[in-house]
Amino acid sequence: MKVKIVQSLLQGNDVIANSLREEFKRKGIFVFNIISSPGAGKTTLLENFAKIIIGRLKVGVIVGDIEDSVDAQRIESSGVKTIQLNTKGACHLDAGMIKTALIDFDVDNLDLLIIENVGNLVCPSDFDLGEDMKIVVLSTTEGDDKPKKYPGTFFKADAVIINKIDLLDFTNFSLEKAKNDIKTINYKAKIFEISAVKPETLYDFANFILDKVRWKKSLVF
Amino acid sequence: MKVKIVQSLLQGNDVIANSLREEFKRKGIFVFNIISSPGAGKTTLLENFAKIIIGRLKVGVIVGDIEDSVDAQRIESSGVKTIQLNTKGACHLDAGMIKTALIDFDVDNLDLLIIENVGNLVCPSDFDLGEDMKIVVLSTTEGDDKPKKYPGTFFKADAVIINKIDLLDFTNFSLEKAKNDIKTINYKAKIFEISAVKPETLYDFANFILDKVRWKKSLVF
Repeated sequence: MKVKIVQSLLQGNDVIANSLREEFKRKGIFVFNIISSPGAGKTTLLENFAKIIIGRLKVGVIVGDIEDSVDAQRIESSGVKTIQLNTKGACHLDAGMIKTALIDFDVDNLDLLIIENVGNLVCPSDFDLGEDMKIVVLSTTEGDDKPKKYPGTFFKADAVIINKIDLLDFTNFSLEKAKNDIKTINYKAKIFEISAVKPETLYDFANFILDKVRWKKSLVF
Repeated sequence: MKVKIVQSLLQGNDVIANSLREEFKRKGIFVFNIISSPGAGKTTLLENFAKIIIGRLKVGVIVGDIEDSVDAQRIESSGVKTIQLNTKGACHLDAGMIKTALIDFDVDNLDLLIIENVGNLVCPSDFDLGEDMKIVVLSTTEGDDKPKKYPGTFFKADAVIINKIDLLDFTNFSLEKAKNDIKTINYKAKIFEISAVKPETLYDFANFILDKVRWKKSLVF
């Protein structure tokens, strides 16, 4: 009995995630799910990223938090439609929550959907949200030991953004060690070095995403 | 049936936590459980804290991580007996894990047991470990919005340590806002401002803990 219940919960998430993936594919919506510790800079990154791409893509953002709606307000002030999900204690978003949030978007007029997960380096990576890509943000002030300490999350990342490069000199963070450890865990992960507070450092990442959005659109026929 | 299973798991933790609490009381061992985001500085704090108190108290440390044993090695190099627990994916420590680790300590010769939880601001606060005190570490580089975003964890904190004060000038962290928000959520929480890399900033916190250890010993008769 116990095993059955656990399976049914996990299967439940995967069933919804698969139906979301089908819908995103049908509509040509590229979706990335952004995961990090609290305070790694996800929201600042998305604020400035939104400003770069706002004229070029139709973008929607879903923001997950335990409580509060400050992050969604910050991102929406960049001009993109944003929905705040409050998980009421849960340490991650699940596919059912994404499905609920999607109701509030005009999915026929969307190129890119960004999901900002709950600040947590452990739980979010276990839940498939039907996304094309998981992106992990690691900030220099957290320490270069984090990839090896949270290998499960870094293993599942399609891209890793190393943030707060502007604070590198004030920390003992070794970029070389961090990048080596990321590559050892996950040699396919694309790595970006940014300072989310400085929009000009986001152009490479923005171009990377623009390419992905074009690729996803090209699959719709 | 489903509800029963959930209750039995939670009750299981509480039963073990209560037996641990009884044992800690009988032996006069003061126990604190330290909780933070990944990279807030728990390990550096414990390394330097251990150096301050090593000659004055018999200390044991239990370190929780998903994988890896680097943190335990760092703390043990300060001269205190340290046990690493690998949770193999779980985002928190539970009372059963602490019971397992205790076997490796000489509990008749222990004044202070420190539990460094898995780096996570959500899950660890839900699990009673039989501790006297939960201590939350918040670093300035994470942002002053964190107390309001993780109120459940800050509400349960007996003390909050604001770390990386030396980086304050390079961030937009407002000490006043952070402290006000912590006090609004939890007016009883004692707040310390430190730079874990600078041992001299830890003396207030060390004296606070020494007082608690004396108090706990005074209850044994």
